[in-house]
Amino acid sequence: MIPTLEWTPAGVNFPASIRFLDQTKLPHEETYVLATTYDEVATVIRDMIVRGAMAIGVSAAMGVALGIDRSTATDIPTLNKEVAVICDTLAATRPTAVNLFWGIAQVRDLYNQLAAANTPIPEIKKQVVALAQRLYDEDIANLRILGAYGAALLPDSGTILTHCNAGALAACGYGSALGVIRAAIEAGKKIDVFADETRPFNQGTRLTAWELLKDNIPTTLICDNMAGYFMGQGRIKAVIVGADRIAANGDTANKIGTYSVAILAKEHGIPFYVAAPFNTIDPATPNGAAIPIEQRSAREVTHVNGVQVTPTGVGIQNPAFDVTPAKYITAIITERGVLRAPFTDSIAKAATN
Amino acid sequence: MIPTLEWTPAGVNFPASIRFLDQTKLPHEETYVLATTYDEVATVIRDMIVRGAMAIGVSAAMGVALGIDRSTATDIPTLNKEVAVICDTLAATRPTAVNLFWGIAQVRDLYNQLAAANTPIPEIKKQVVALAQRLYDEDIANLRILGAYGAALLPDSGTILTHCNAGALAACGYGSALGVIRAAIEAGKKIDVFADETRPFNQGTRLTAWELLKDNIPTTLICDNMAGYFMGQGRIKAVIVGADRIAANGDTANKIGTYSVAILAKEHGIPFYVAAPFNTIDPATPNGAAIPIEQRSAREVTHVNGVQVTPTGVGIQNPAFDVTPAKYITAIITERGVLRAPFTDSIAKAATN
Repeated sequence: MIPTLEWTPAGVNFPASIRFLDQTKLPHEETYVLATTYDEVATVIRDMIVRGAMAIGVSAAMGVALGIDRSTATDIPTLNKEVAVICDTLAATRPTAVNLFWGIAQVRDLYNQLAAANTPIPEIKKQVVALAQRLYDEDIANLRILGAYGAALLPDSGTILTHCNAGALAACGYGSALGVIRAAIEAGKKIDVFADETRPFNQGTRLTAWELLKDNIPTTLICDNMAGYFMGQGRIKAVIVGADRIAANGDTANKIGTYSVAILAKEHGIPFYVAAPFNTIDPATPNGAAIPIEQRSAREVTHVNGVQVTPTGVGIQNPAFDVTPAKYITAIITERGVLRAPFTDSIAKAATN
Repeated sequence: MIPTLEWTPAGVNFPASIRFLDQTKLPHEETYVLATTYDEVATVIRDMIVRGAMAIGVSAAMGVALGIDRSTATDIPTLNKEVAVICDTLAATRPTAVNLFWGIAQVRDLYNQLAAANTPIPEIKKQVVALAQRLYDEDIANLRILGAYGAALLPDSGTILTHCNAGALAACGYGSALGVIRAAIEAGKKIDVFADETRPFNQGTRLTAWELLKDNIPTTLICDNMAGYFMGQGRIKAVIVGADRIAANGDTANKIGTYSVAILAKEHGIPFYVAAPFNTIDPATPNGAAIPIEQRSAREVTHVNGVQVTPTGVGIQNPAFDVTPAKYITAIITERGVLRAPFTDSIAKAATN
């Protein structure tokens, strides 16, 4: 079990905290960062110590719960003001993954309900903390169901290409895209993985390769620009990626480069699957054009291991995500089943299940 | 003028040599490597101290000339044997760029002719050295003509995407793809460049950005996986790349990732141009399937600046080139004019010009 994030309950001498595996230090160091305030959780999310839509969602929920749990407010009106600040702070960390807002909303909605009923503050604290922990458990449970649905779609043997890390490290465990691969292997399929490096943050190099090797899943790292070559060679049987936000029409925001891989898959007649828990689908986002794309620091491109690799003065662009239009997506794999085009219909139907 | 490579004639106290700008040290250091034997030239090519099809071609020609010039043979039969070894050594450095074999053949053919005529060895030396230097001059002259042809194809303003480095650093000067951009700017067009990083050797980051900034051409570096995103945004007006070998049917081998960019360009309706001197076209290669693809060391992928970035144990693939089928190519720009589909015909016709 990969310990992406973990709630640490308060003890006699210490408050509750959240322990994060520091993903910026992988694959070379397995070190942890302990967040003891909601502000520290915000920093952990912003600095990508934790990343991946599902992990961000649960981290944000835990962050709100931690903020409430650590509050010294003695009356509901004061706590109401604090909760607003806590939620705003966490919501301002990263714009693209809708799971962040979902996680915040889950805890805030419960809080609002309890506060409106004038629930005693200690009881509110107990209940929001319990909810955050339940979301953690549900994340893993949902991904195991999703994995089983997805495993049936993969071939009995062959190489699957993935981009970025939609693995245990991007969730509370198991993973979405990599969860499907794990489930396929657990079902006896002979699958090996090609992982794109995923510049500039190198999630493929640092995270996907690391966690798949831990599970003894055969993994080959390729540069992002090699995916087309190996598709042309007939080497890739399917592509499977995660998602940071899926619009109501199926358009999918995911790590920069996903759009290119989807076009390459289409050109080669290779199925392109998106694997994501249902809370990654945002009914309030009508289509991909409405998804905000985070622009991250130029330094992620200019520096590798703290060393500048670019000539000084060159312009840099660093969009962290792109949007893959629904037309390139063979199926969206969720814990509510496998959704297919027309996605507007299949998503709406699954939402009522 | 960027001093990619330069023949240094013999002096009173020192033999002839070839001076190479060490491209593995760019963009941070401008240092030089002096090759004083053909063996050292072979090492310089193999280690990519000099790289780029055109530069490799002239380097190989100069390498053969240097080997002959430095020979202590006093009779033609002895020199014949040495020349065979010299040519074989240089031919074994890198397999994909046909210019290497072209450059060797140019000097070897002249040598064979002079040797068959029992030309005195000092005269042979003089003539092969003069030929190698003439090939250097012709490379630049051809690229200026090529650039003028290509400039007419580019829009009056906008962003051009390039992959790898087909610039002055890939030739004796000016460049093929970047020569077209230089010529367009010299003609008053308002062009700026997006340069792909070009993993794993980072020619875009280290070389293209460096040489364009030297010429004050506005340049933005993007990761390889961002090209599709910017095409989707309408940001890219045209793509222009170089070539390492063009088959008789127009299929083009170029740096790994070129094939993916060509597919993305097609999907977005963006013109995709190949710029290469005519000696990059190999009539003996019927199509792309016949082009050998060099597989380079895993270390180029696993290490950045000498530091390992991958988890130990992951598989690595490192094909250095891919083949873009002719159907994705809008036009091939040469010093003999702009060739268009059907390329088998346009290439054959240009060959007789």
